[in-house]
Amino acid sequence: MKSYKKELWFNAPERIAFINITNQVEEAVHESGIKEGLCLVNAMHITASVFINDDERGLHKDYKRWLEELAPHEPISQYLHNRTGEDNGDAHLKRQIMGREVVVAVTAGRLDFGPWEQIFYGKFDGRRRKRVMVKIIGE
Amino acid sequence: MKSYKKELWFNAPERIAFINITNQVEEAVHESGIKEGLCLVNAMHITASVFINDDERGLHKDYKRWLEELAPHEPISQYLHNRTGEDNGDAHLKRQIMGREVVVAVTAGRLDFGPWEQIFYGKFDGRRRKRVMVKIIGE
Amino acid sequence: MKSYKKELWFNAPERIAFINITNQVEEAVHESGIKEGLCLVNAMHITASVFINDDERGLHKDYKRWLEELAPHEPISQYLHNRTGEDNGDAHLKRQIMGREVVVAVTAGRLDFGPWEQIFYGKFDGRRRKRVMVKIIGE
Repeated sequence: MKSYKKELWFNAPERIAFINITNQVEEAVHESGIKEGLCLVNAMHITASVFINDDERGLHKDYKRWLEELAPHEPISQYLHNRTGEDNGDAHLKRQIMGREVVVAVTAGRLDFGPWEQIFYGKFDGRRRKRVMVKIIGE
Repeated sequence: MKSYKKELWFNAPERIAFINITNQVEEAVHESGIKEGLCLVNAMHITASVFINDDERGLHKDYKRWLEELAPHEPISQYLHNRTGEDNGDAHLKRQIMGREVVVAVTAGRLDFGPWEQIFYGKFDGRRRKRVMVKIIGE
Repeated sequence: MKSYKKELWFNAPERIAFINITNQVEEAVHESGIKEGLCLVNAMHITASVFINDDERGLHKDYKRWLEELAPHEPISQYLHNRTGEDNGDAHLKRQIMGREVVVAVTAGRLDFGPWEQIFYGKFDGRRRKRVMVKIIGE
């Protein structure tokens, strides 16, 4: 069995953003030399998500509006978490809707995807540099 | 290490449906010959989900009503995504609530489940034939 | 390839509770002797969740309030599932928001975490003893 780990770093000025990281994950699979296995991709920060969906700008705006309805950023006083001095209580909720991680099959040395699957990093609290873990195991 | 991949195909006339696929996944585990490992089951379409819950008809109706409240299908004009000519903006949101994938332990050649766990394919946009990926790795 | 399985048992008097199980999962990784691999942690009951987030008391109260807004416990008659004699229809919905499972990288014999990641067992229907599955594969 082989294993391979890589951390990807991101920085985006907006508070909320979705970044397509498919190529970087595919590159990690290539570097790993693993042909058959599983690839875990997870946000390392607890106010961020890794998810798979469509790379369509309108959809991403729909997600932002919808997440804001389900877990509004303001008033920040509505979240007990923000009494710790944070203002990102909403981001911890949004991240649960969109998920922490994806696990993708690796087949014949590539991410084994459906026709429109793309991997996104979603940040809901944009102040810090953020990391994504890629861990691949297989043969 | 062994690995095994199988694609399952589904077609159901309803726009929204939950299909119990536990037996087909169990069959794939059997075919793989893998006794100890992990089994990934994921929707290959981005308006569909794979999730684990109870096979109870009332609950499935509760899920449908609840998902419709959280992300209504109509008016379809409320989703920017639908300006691409689609009418399935809501399905991309519903799928995030119910999830893309499950990972199940394989122990002694079987899916290692809790007492009521059953695997479902959830479709929220029923127009096309849909695929599920099963990837098993282990020994 | 090695594999290791362990079941963790929990009992908490409250209907809804979040229990930090990070140390118990870390202990299972240690017992497994696996240095590089993947660790699956999943709820075995379908009204419970395993998720990763912050160990901050205010945040956990925020989650409880928010989940109660998204899927209220009462009136219990609003859920068709409760016609089976249950009163936990809401718990099946809450669990979908918070998720069934997490998959964590194992690197150098330890859970490979971001700075604030902690694993929680979330129960939304507290009447019975509940189990969590830990399955680790790797080398």
